[in-house]
Amino acid sequence: MRNLLITIRYDGRRYHGFQVQAAGVPTVASAFQDAEEKVFGGRFPIKGCSRTDAGVHANRFCLSLLTESRIPAGRVVPALNANLPPDIAAIDCREVPLDFHARYSAAGKRYLYKIWNHPVRNPFWEGLALHEPRPLDLERLGRAARCFLGTHDFCGFSNAGGSVTDTVRTLTELTFRREGELVVLSVCGDGFLYNMVRILTGTLLEVARGRIREEELPAVLASKDRSRAGVTVPACGLYLDEVFYPSFAAGRDDPAV
Amino acid sequence: MRNLLITIRYDGRRYHGFQVQAAGVPTVASAFQDAEEKVFGGRFPIKGCSRTDAGVHANRFCLSLLTESRIPAGRVVPALNANLPPDIAAIDCREVPLDFHARYSAAGKRYLYKIWNHPVRNPFWEGLALHEPRPLDLERLGRAARCFLGTHDFCGFSNAGGSVTDTVRTLTELTFRREGELVVLSVCGDGFLYNMVRILTGTLLEVARGRIREEELPAVLASKDRSRAGVTVPACGLYLDEVFYPSFAAGRDDPAV
Repeated sequence: MRNLLITIRYDGRRYHGFQVQAAGVPTVASAFQDAEEKVFGGRFPIKGCSRTDAGVHANRFCLSLLTESRIPAGRVVPALNANLPPDIAAIDCREVPLDFHARYSAAGKRYLYKIWNHPVRNPFWEGLALHEPRPLDLERLGRAARCFLGTHDFCGFSNAGGSVTDTVRTLTELTFRREGELVVLSVCGDGFLYNMVRILTGTLLEVARGRIREEELPAVLASKDRSRAGVTVPACGLYLDEVFYPSFAAGRDDPAV
Repeated sequence: MRNLLITIRYDGRRYHGFQVQAAGVPTVASAFQDAEEKVFGGRFPIKGCSRTDAGVHANRFCLSLLTESRIPAGRVVPALNANLPPDIAAIDCREVPLDFHARYSAAGKRYLYKIWNHPVRNPFWEGLALHEPRPLDLERLGRAARCFLGTHDFCGFSNAGGSVTDTVRTLTELTFRREGELVVLSVCGDGFLYNMVRILTGTLLEVARGRIREEELPAVLASKDRSRAGVTVPACGLYLDEVFYPSFAAGRDDPAV
């Protein structure tokens, strides 16, 4: 028995999230398992690093797979890519210890939230970024974001649906950068509550729009009151960008998108 | 009667090219005319700057439209965008002289050809770039490209299907640049024959792969023999990037993609 850590990249537009659902509902995991069956000769149980929601994308999503197949790790990526649909690609495969688990072994993750910030919508970012027609003041956003750094109880920044009871998380990075007309929020943390990145983004966008005052944010966070935080922005702009494991970052050799 | 020059951007994956075809065949022009009818109160004849093929994209495609509608030019872009499908956007509209024609008034055009140059295919560039898994030597490509600059008879670099008889064209730019793992060929000229950019790209890629020698290119060009040039690369990587008119470049205020 071997444990393989496989990194995949996917455009989530066509999928109802990662996790397998009812038969006939397209999910990333079910598409992966169809390819897995051909490459590994069976449907071995896979463990994903997280449950991405419908329409969420991944630059590097990690899953671990316990298999009896003898296929060399170096042949897995091309073999999977020959069998995966065009909107999912395998980008890395490596053998890991048997007790490694893609989710529980993760020390942290980075998510991106992409915003097409231009008066006119962009056909090439349709379903791949949120459209914000009004100019965003990145200096203000970056300054406002700082109050979320460090260790806090983020229970006011999650929606019903998560299974966790401990809502304390540590954020180590929360920045905005501009790439042409695209604004990219980048957030690193040891873990994220259900919809947490989308609510953090929504809250910061309301600061940018003047609906929440920057000075209020520490009180909004301390209140643990979901109704005081901003809206949950759409899934389309969200990308799981990287998963950090103690001794390596999976798929690191591969370029970002 | 007014003549409006409208610039649109589109993701061509879903369309059988720009030009209207048989009923039921999705084309960019037919989608535009559906929106036009709502915005201008009728289907006024439109003149496109070129006939892009099935699967070709446009960062800035220009069309002119003779209309009796009194809608101010400044209101056309948002009105069209409320009625166009998500993969087509209007980005500019301006009034031009009545004798202006989007195609015949054009002094030149720029096309891009995008190549995802990485061993593993990228789900986010599926249908939007050619996948070339082997490393491309951009210095060599740039050097080889130089022999196409200037005025030449490009009849060996076109496929059957064009309507023109004069096959002499002038290229003023033909360069390669790298944007991360993406390689972008950029070509400017006073006009292009049918499939010319795709054959030029295919020929240069065969130089990169060592199938055509760099020193042979002038003879290939002079031979006017289609069979000596390279393959026609797929439509997916091709973008009409800009159309140049004597006094202005349409949609110039808008960012490139």
